[in-house]
Amino acid sequence: MHKFVMGALCAIALHAETGADAWLRYAPLEGAALSGARQSMPAVLSLLDDSEPARSAQSEIVRGVRGMLGRTLRTASALPAEDALVLGTIEEIRRAAPDWHLDVAIPADGFWLKSVTAGGRHYLVVASADGRGILYGSFALLRRIALGGSLANLDEHQAPYAPIRWVNQWDNLNGSIERGYGGPSIFWENNTAREDLSRVSDYGRLLASLGIDGCSINNVNANPQVLTPEFLPNIQRIAAAFRPWGVRVVVAVDFGSPQSIGKLDSFDPLDARVAAWWKSTVDAIYRAVPDFGGFVLKADSEGRVGPSTYGRSHADAANVVARALAPHGGLLLYRGFVYDHHMDWRNPKNDRARAAYDNFHDLDGKFDDNVVIQIKNGPIDFQVREPASPLFGALEKTNQAIELQVTQEYFGQARHMVYLPPMWKEVLDFDLHAGTSATPVKALAAGKVFHRPTGGFVGVANVGMDQNWLGNHMSQANLYGFGRLAWNPDLTAAAIAAEWTRLTFGANETVDRTIEQMQLSSWRTYENYTGPLGLQTLTDITGNHFGVNVEASERNGWGQWHRADEKGAGMDRTSATGTGFAGQYRPEVARMYESMTTCPDDLLLWFHHVPYTHVLHGGKTVIQYIYDSHYEGAEAVEGYVRAWRRLAGLVDERRYQEVLAQLEYQAGQAEVWRDAVTNWFAHASGIADAKGRVGHYPGRFEAEQMELQGYTVHDVTPSEDASGGKAVGCAAASCTAALTYHGGPGWYTVRVQYFDQNDGASHYRLWIGKQLVDEWSADRKLPPTRRLDSTSSTRRQLTGVALRPGDQIRVEGVPDGAEPAGLDYVEIVKDDQ
Amino acid sequence: MHKFVMGALCAIALHAETGADAWLRYAPLEGAALSGARQSMPAVLSLLDDSEPARSAQSEIVRGVRGMLGRTLRTASALPAEDALVLGTIEEIRRAAPDWHLDVAIPADGFWLKSVTAGGRHYLVVASADGRGILYGSFALLRRIALGGSLANLDEHQAPYAPIRWVNQWDNLNGSIERGYGGPSIFWENNTAREDLSRVSDYGRLLASLGIDGCSINNVNANPQVLTPEFLPNIQRIAAAFRPWGVRVVVAVDFGSPQSIGKLDSFDPLDARVAAWWKSTVDAIYRAVPDFGGFVLKADSEGRVGPSTYGRSHADAANVVARALAPHGGLLLYRGFVYDHHMDWRNPKNDRARAAYDNFHDLDGKFDDNVVIQIKNGPIDFQVREPASPLFGALEKTNQAIELQVTQEYFGQARHMVYLPPMWKEVLDFDLHAGTSATPVKALAAGKVFHRPTGGFVGVANVGMDQNWLGNHMSQANLYGFGRLAWNPDLTAAAIAAEWTRLTFGANETVDRTIEQMQLSSWRTYENYTGPLGLQTLTDITGNHFGVNVEASERNGWGQWHRADEKGAGMDRTSATGTGFAGQYRPEVARMYESMTTCPDDLLLWFHHVPYTHVLHGGKTVIQYIYDSHYEGAEAVEGYVRAWRRLAGLVDERRYQEVLAQLEYQAGQAEVWRDAVTNWFAHASGIADAKGRVGHYPGRFEAEQMELQGYTVHDVTPSEDASGGKAVGCAAASCTAALTYHGGPGWYTVRVQYFDQNDGASHYRLWIGKQLVDEWSADRKLPPTRRLDSTSSTRRQLTGVALRPGDQIRVEGVPDGAEPAGLDYVEIVKDDQ
Repeated sequence: MHKFVMGALCAIALHAETGADAWLRYAPLEGAALSGARQSMPAVLSLLDDSEPARSAQSEIVRGVRGMLGRTLRTASALPAEDALVLGTIEEIRRAAPDWHLDVAIPADGFWLKSVTAGGRHYLVVASADGRGILYGSFALLRRIALGGSLANLDEHQAPYAPIRWVNQWDNLNGSIERGYGGPSIFWENNTAREDLSRVSDYGRLLASLGIDGCSINNVNANPQVLTPEFLPNIQRIAAAFRPWGVRVVVAVDFGSPQSIGKLDSFDPLDARVAAWWKSTVDAIYRAVPDFGGFVLKADSEGRVGPSTYGRSHADAANVVARALAPHGGLLLYRGFVYDHHMDWRNPKNDRARAAYDNFHDLDGKFDDNVVIQIKNGPIDFQVREPASPLFGALEKTNQAIELQVTQEYFGQARHMVYLPPMWKEVLDFDLHAGTSATPVKALAAGKVFHRPTGGFVGVANVGMDQNWLGNHMSQANLYGFGRLAWNPDLTAAAIAAEWTRLTFGANETVDRTIEQMQLSSWRTYENYTGPLGLQTLTDITGNHFGVNVEASERNGWGQWHRADEKGAGMDRTSATGTGFAGQYRPEVARMYESMTTCPDDLLLWFHHVPYTHVLHGGKTVIQYIYDSHYEGAEAVEGYVRAWRRLAGLVDERRYQEVLAQLEYQAGQAEVWRDAVTNWFAHASGIADAKGRVGHYPGRFEAEQMELQGYTVHDVTPSEDASGGKAVGCAAASCTAALTYHGGPGWYTVRVQYFDQNDGASHYRLWIGKQLVDEWSADRKLPPTRRLDSTSSTRRQLTGVALRPGDQIRVEGVPDGAEPAGLDYVEIVKDDQ
Repeated sequence: MHKFVMGALCAIALHAETGADAWLRYAPLEGAALSGARQSMPAVLSLLDDSEPARSAQSEIVRGVRGMLGRTLRTASALPAEDALVLGTIEEIRRAAPDWHLDVAIPADGFWLKSVTAGGRHYLVVASADGRGILYGSFALLRRIALGGSLANLDEHQAPYAPIRWVNQWDNLNGSIERGYGGPSIFWENNTAREDLSRVSDYGRLLASLGIDGCSINNVNANPQVLTPEFLPNIQRIAAAFRPWGVRVVVAVDFGSPQSIGKLDSFDPLDARVAAWWKSTVDAIYRAVPDFGGFVLKADSEGRVGPSTYGRSHADAANVVARALAPHGGLLLYRGFVYDHHMDWRNPKNDRARAAYDNFHDLDGKFDDNVVIQIKNGPIDFQVREPASPLFGALEKTNQAIELQVTQEYFGQARHMVYLPPMWKEVLDFDLHAGTSATPVKALAAGKVFHRPTGGFVGVANVGMDQNWLGNHMSQANLYGFGRLAWNPDLTAAAIAAEWTRLTFGANETVDRTIEQMQLSSWRTYENYTGPLGLQTLTDITGNHFGVNVEASERNGWGQWHRADEKGAGMDRTSATGTGFAGQYRPEVARMYESMTTCPDDLLLWFHHVPYTHVLHGGKTVIQYIYDSHYEGAEAVEGYVRAWRRLAGLVDERRYQEVLAQLEYQAGQAEVWRDAVTNWFAHASGIADAKGRVGHYPGRFEAEQMELQGYTVHDVTPSEDASGGKAVGCAAASCTAALTYHGGPGWYTVRVQYFDQNDGASHYRLWIGKQLVDEWSADRKLPPTRRLDSTSSTRRQLTGVALRPGDQIRVEGVPDGAEPAGLDYVEIVKDDQ
């Protein structure tokens, strides 16, 4: 305990807003909130429970009250002879204070915040069934204080919606993280646990504040080494760092382990030696880590080995492992993300979306009770919009959990602001009509509909060593939102955004409204410029999942096809004429998707192939909607930049600057996406934008048409990744591209669209005549690309430039390393004033 | 030029308030100030002059307008066919625009900001006599914009008050700085000029913004190596970095150089070989640095060699060097700081204060016209209060300059906030009655009274590599104030504070009023707790000049005697009965100081020895005034902390935190000073504080009287440096000191007074019963001390602690290195609410 109290005390002295404390900043209250909280807060904090989570709860309350109220509570382990804040299990409280007559059943991990007056004294009580409940109740109490809520007459019962509230980390043992955008692993370095695990403890604190009680600590594409006896001390150390926060360690395992590290000649799940190996391996783990949570297993998918090697079923595979875990109370989360990535794209009946259902629904009832099928929210893979996976509604005798992706793999990789809870809420609240009354996905996943022993929520978090955990401050809202929804999926996305914003940025009305509005609209905004109408995220799906590449989805076995061609777009997934995927849903849902009349516009091209001239319910043609939504999306991000700038001086300087830089970058990227996608569809469809925007860019000067010295013209692939399909690169020590300005005199913004690869740090200078007016370096390293493409395409803009007719505008590029100081275009835009 | 423009452009992108840009932040204007400035600002900036300072002026205006107005002006080198901002000498402007009929004489370094309407066009004109004047006018224009001033109908003439406006840096060639508190030298590293001199260029910019045109770049206790031919390239490089900002390089020289590096057997100023050596050495410098400014020379003082070796006069010494400089227009600043530091303290007629006058007034008229006697403001050495040096009024046929100390040697060494311009103003405005009309020191120093060819102002600046230049943000106001007064000593200290605060912290009314009030009262506050009534700064004058040591002034040859004993205090400097120092002033002034009736209370003990029971003009006895002023001073600093805390959220986070930490430290130190000085005088005088405070500290628990485990008691020297004269130190791995609290229950502040030496980083923990409530490390390195004394004495306080009768309060100390985790006392103070 000593160690953690120290950490808590030290942190008080430091106020720099690095983002490390996320929503647990405990910033000082002011005014009425301060005086109210001080009045209600007794001086003594009594802890009746001796568990590690309960002791963390006590030091967390000391820390929080100290930060918010400027007071150091006195800790005690019994009821004092004065007013007190009392933490304990309901049993312990009944024993210590029988006269309070607190008689209520509290579910596991739940808590009761209760004001008690007895013997002329006033008590604030956090009662629970267990130590973890004390911790969760304490965080709830602190959140209430931070949000300015009253502590008078408390009587609040809370219990988690589902038993499973876990995060997965896709951390490789070498310290990298697959699809991680917040720096290297907090767990691993050089194939061993980090010497300093203080960030693991800090992460445990964040997770506990949300009620998350399990964390898998290595990539689902698992290194078999994690199950060797020599490796076990690493797991043990991480479990010790998490334990005070009630977070159980979970490990991702490789199904071939009995053979690859167990020295057997087989990993056949029906082989008794294999079962014995799993049993002895698991027993050893539990000897070292008695509160071990269990395993995550990805089998027969994307190159991972699985039961198919021996002609066995997923149930055979799951059960052999689960039976080793069962005696210890461990769970096996078996991933439903199983599909064939060598599918023939020429067969119009093939459909990756069918895979999860096809693989698992026949096995319903064949899985042991401690197996949970972990199902991604949508049938493909975390695309910008997908329908709920039909598998949620297809398993009645099998546990399930929903897998949501906190890390923004297909959502701009922490370079774009996208608040995901609105999307998750659509899925969680979606009624799959799997029963006689409402059966929303959240109830199915939680096991409520078919009365399963367990079920719940898994978030792929992928936090890293970056001080702000996820690579940018705004993305923290997604981790917060996942945790809050895992605890209570009935919360609205708006309520979560309001909580998070106030906790994270303070109680300024202007700041809070601005950030909430940005966050709540950001998913639609991102969808608008990356893949509307159910097209999926039109990114390079065989590459980095970040830049634009409309055709990357097609003509390969990965099955993320959108079937856009010269006549129309969309994947026919109807039962009548398509792949039959719509028929995997229960009839009510299937009927809705089967018909273009009832299928929502947002998913039209997911379920149907239509001509570009098809008229949507909103009255627009598909092609015009594609054009309009992309322009709207890009404009919305410009609006975020303007809105954020109005917060100057209201948000602490560090986060203000960091978020501003992120939003400005996103604004440039949104325009790259807009132009790439609209040009591709304009070219494919041959139908012009009715508003005349696509392909016409007043004020834009293509680099390839400028007066070039040293620069040479490159064809960009895919061609939509650069304006006009071409860019220029410099193979000399320095090159220039110049144009002569012929417009009227005035104040202008000059935008330079250049390419910032990760294999050099080119330097750029912008000249007007002989006057150097701007310079910068292309020194970003992420997202990674070594090419002139939409991933590297970046905007630099300078506002308030006086231009006069005849001015020569010149960009000078100085290459560095393998980066050729690439240039796409210069754009000149009149300033407002 | 290219290089400097680049620097300027890059800086725009970074907004972090490190203090590096000081008062030249060019933060964006808002609201009416922004729209007004945008309306008045033309798009073209024409520079008619080709000098380096003029080119800097042009890029500085581009940078400033870009920062404040968000607009990038177009630069031109001729009058454009549109409105313009025009920079040029008055000659160049007359030639380019004869129809403007601008016909006026502008003095050297002066400028004219003028609005001109001609041919239907509007011009903003910065006219000058020379390139430096263009630069100064441009900075004045930018300052006007930053302060929200109008640019309409400009017609402002400014010229410097005096020709000499220099700073001295006491930088050693090894990179250390004597009396420097802002990090290592920006000039030197390992006895050579730094490879990267960008900070020198940045410093030149700061200096130019104030009109300072000379900087000596090495310690006045000079290393003779600076005059070797091999060293010259270093000086040349630094001069090149300064030149764009119109700052001339000055070098401090050692008078023994002809012998020590010139290989002569003498440095006798009347030896022709010595004169020839100085001439050839100076000629070589000017060949390398044609705009070299000259030399500073400290001779026959504090161990430096001088003309006394050969029985020659200071005039002989000065003239031999000055004659080498004269053909090139160089100046010799000869320091008036000459005194005997082995004076017999037992002789009541001896007086160091007499030294400057005694050494120089008989030589009046014997110095060449390019010699300037550089005289410290007071007769001793930058003490907290001194009368003006009488030498200013004693030289009629000799050039002089006043030396002011920007670096806070005796003013808390950048750990205490002390704004010095009010003190400087008292001296500058003090009338020495040296002529028939008013002869304030400023006019004498500037050479105006006796019509000298030159004269002026020298500031000992000692900026360093710290990002904020001087070790803390508030101290920048002193550099700013020195520069502004050197340009125009008629400015008030309040006006300068208002300018500086708004430029440095922005245009928030609350912020500006708070900081101005703190700054303007800070000298009196510091005087109150360190040495009121003219006692001088009661610090360790033979040591670090930082901590308290009342007796350090006495019984040694350094002559900073205050003669405090059991009967009374003060140095009798009257002509009637004392050292006769008062008689060095002209009769009107001498009479005032000679009589206790007319001598101001603030200087009473400087001029008179009086019993402690002497009643001051204000009605208090001397002893009671000493007590009261120390309590007032300490309370005032507590008030600064409270006032600063109210600026949370209004000042950028970084500077808010850094200044808060500084003020909290100062508040602790002020209490150390208060207790040390009042106890010393209570003990010496045997007269109790009428208000019963001194020696009685309710709530204070002396460490030596606490229950000690491992800690041992040390006698502290001087005894007033620790409460009760004793402290405890730990020679074990860890020690504790404990007390039992017997007061009433409530919320308290617990203060721990501990010792933070520079030879270790001890760790402390504060426990209440078994509860750890605070912990910290004593890891400061400055000011340096390896002892338990007032320099290391530091306060840690924790507010809002719930205490209950019977509580055990325990401090645990873990020594580190040679630092014994020293402890003076614990103090318990009831919280307000």
